[in-house]
Amino acid sequence: MKKITVIAPATVANVVCGFDCLGFAIKKPFDKITVSTIKERNTIRIKHLDDFNLPTEANQNVAGKAVMAMLEKIKQKHYGHELEWIENIGFQIEIKKGIKPGSGIGSSAASAVGVIVALNELLGKPFCQNELLEFALAGEELASQGRHADNIAPCLFGGFTLVRSVEPLDIVKLEFPTLWATVVHPQIEIKTSEARKILPQKIPLKTAIKAWSNLGAFVSALSKGDYELLARSLEDEIVEPVRKRLIPHFDQLKEAGLKAGAIGGGISGSGPSVFMLSKSQKTAQKVAKKMSEVLRKTEIPFKVYVSEIDVEGAKVIS
Amino acid sequence: MKKITVIAPATVANVVCGFDCLGFAIKKPFDKITVSTIKERNTIRIKHLDDFNLPTEANQNVAGKAVMAMLEKIKQKHYGHELEWIENIGFQIEIKKGIKPGSGIGSSAASAVGVIVALNELLGKPFCQNELLEFALAGEELASQGRHADNIAPCLFGGFTLVRSVEPLDIVKLEFPTLWATVVHPQIEIKTSEARKILPQKIPLKTAIKAWSNLGAFVSALSKGDYELLARSLEDEIVEPVRKRLIPHFDQLKEAGLKAGAIGGGISGSGPSVFMLSKSQKTAQKVAKKMSEVLRKTEIPFKVYVSEIDVEGAKVIS
Repeated sequence: MKKITVIAPATVANVVCGFDCLGFAIKKPFDKITVSTIKERNTIRIKHLDDFNLPTEANQNVAGKAVMAMLEKIKQKHYGHELEWIENIGFQIEIKKGIKPGSGIGSSAASAVGVIVALNELLGKPFCQNELLEFALAGEELASQGRHADNIAPCLFGGFTLVRSVEPLDIVKLEFPTLWATVVHPQIEIKTSEARKILPQKIPLKTAIKAWSNLGAFVSALSKGDYELLARSLEDEIVEPVRKRLIPHFDQLKEAGLKAGAIGGGISGSGPSVFMLSKSQKTAQKVAKKMSEVLRKTEIPFKVYVSEIDVEGAKVIS
Repeated sequence: MKKITVIAPATVANVVCGFDCLGFAIKKPFDKITVSTIKERNTIRIKHLDDFNLPTEANQNVAGKAVMAMLEKIKQKHYGHELEWIENIGFQIEIKKGIKPGSGIGSSAASAVGVIVALNELLGKPFCQNELLEFALAGEELASQGRHADNIAPCLFGGFTLVRSVEPLDIVKLEFPTLWATVVHPQIEIKTSEARKILPQKIPLKTAIKAWSNLGAFVSALSKGDYELLARSLEDEIVEPVRKRLIPHFDQLKEAGLKAGAIGGGISGSGPSVFMLSKSQKTAQKVAKKMSEVLRKTEIPFKVYVSEIDVEGAKVIS
């Protein structure tokens, strides 16, 4: 029996000024995924080592779907070659989610990427990173009902990534300076599909110009390590004003983070998590404290994470 | 009598994927502007050393307006101090335009920036670069009927610049690799104001996402010197499809440039000039040759420029 365990990091997508294209990975929380060979032929057995009651049928499960996509590709391309041994076996996937589903920090992306990285390792690395991305995307599509790679990409590659195009996939790894993230997850439910529905179909050209000017400046600021420009660029007049209504106390959370010294921040993915970026661990912790104070005054349960940007992406640990 | 001469470079704005924010400067063509003190009090005398019949009244002339803005600021702030001597004199501005008005390569920006840099030098450099930008913008507004700094900024600073915001002005100087520009100027008239009128007021969010993903990727590609990514990012579904109709043979020009080995390119500013970027002078010259062949088959007179990116911006030469 072969067995590989991978940890896959949480990710923050959109990052205020890069809706549907920008994302970064954080060291914690993360998912832990073990893939092992089993004797049952053509079987994908999914076991959950957590209490989230996610589906165990492969074609209903993000990780299962990603694995199916990879196995399908193997059948098309490699069958009869060095991978024909997998015809006589099956795979067991054990998932221990550290990233709560629906938290807005790339929970489904971590499942999809983690399992794909594990299976690729187990099979002797037949696929390159871009192919892995495609398989993970096939899993992610089940959760987000669309081709969105803005969580998948940073989860796989680590660091900050920009999805230039999804069809064909074209991922840009961005240069970036030392940054710490504070993520506050108010434990309320926001469905990604619903958070998409409330977005405008059309936007004024003027507003779009502001948006791309900010993203261009943000990318330049990342590469130059210009923290002040990062701060000025973390601005969004399109998505934040609409989506923040779904997140109770969003304005207070953001204000508290900024007052505590954060560079900037906003909604993580489609929410409800709210993230802030800071120059140092110390500031990120202070930001966490001040944002926590906002939610502690309410009835809403929440979790807080302080983490450096993860530069490795999903990785094999055993 | 004091006298300062400045050359101010032509600039390519929009750069396909950075509508209304991105721009770069080229070494040629350029304007030559001389500012000198004259005895006539409170006088701005404008002399044209070319055949373009531009206005000579200061408040009707881009350079004149820019100078008026600077003098106004001096009155507000410095009067009674080290600059009080200018109360008793006037200024003569001699303009020799190497950049044809209406060519789409920042002709008015060069007049505005050139005169401002010259006057600032003549006065002993009382103003910083950002202030100069504001004065030049006051001139440019006369030509473009709006606050557009995407030609002004690269003309002043050189290189590639990104206007993150015009209100307040926030200019980002971008890192970039060796690049050569080919600019073909078909000598037909397109008014910037008319080229603006035909733009859509609203655009689909999906299209906007593609646009900002490309700009983000372009800025990253510039900083990393990734020519292939530059090529993939030079894409625009919003402005080019609408404006290219104003430029005869645009598709053939672009195709000829790409076939000759250019990285990419498109409309310069609001046209009619078409630019291409190449890795080397040799390729840029081949691009110029092939694009020229397209226009030589027509009745349209044209000019072609091959130039490295100008890194200095407007500069004092004597």
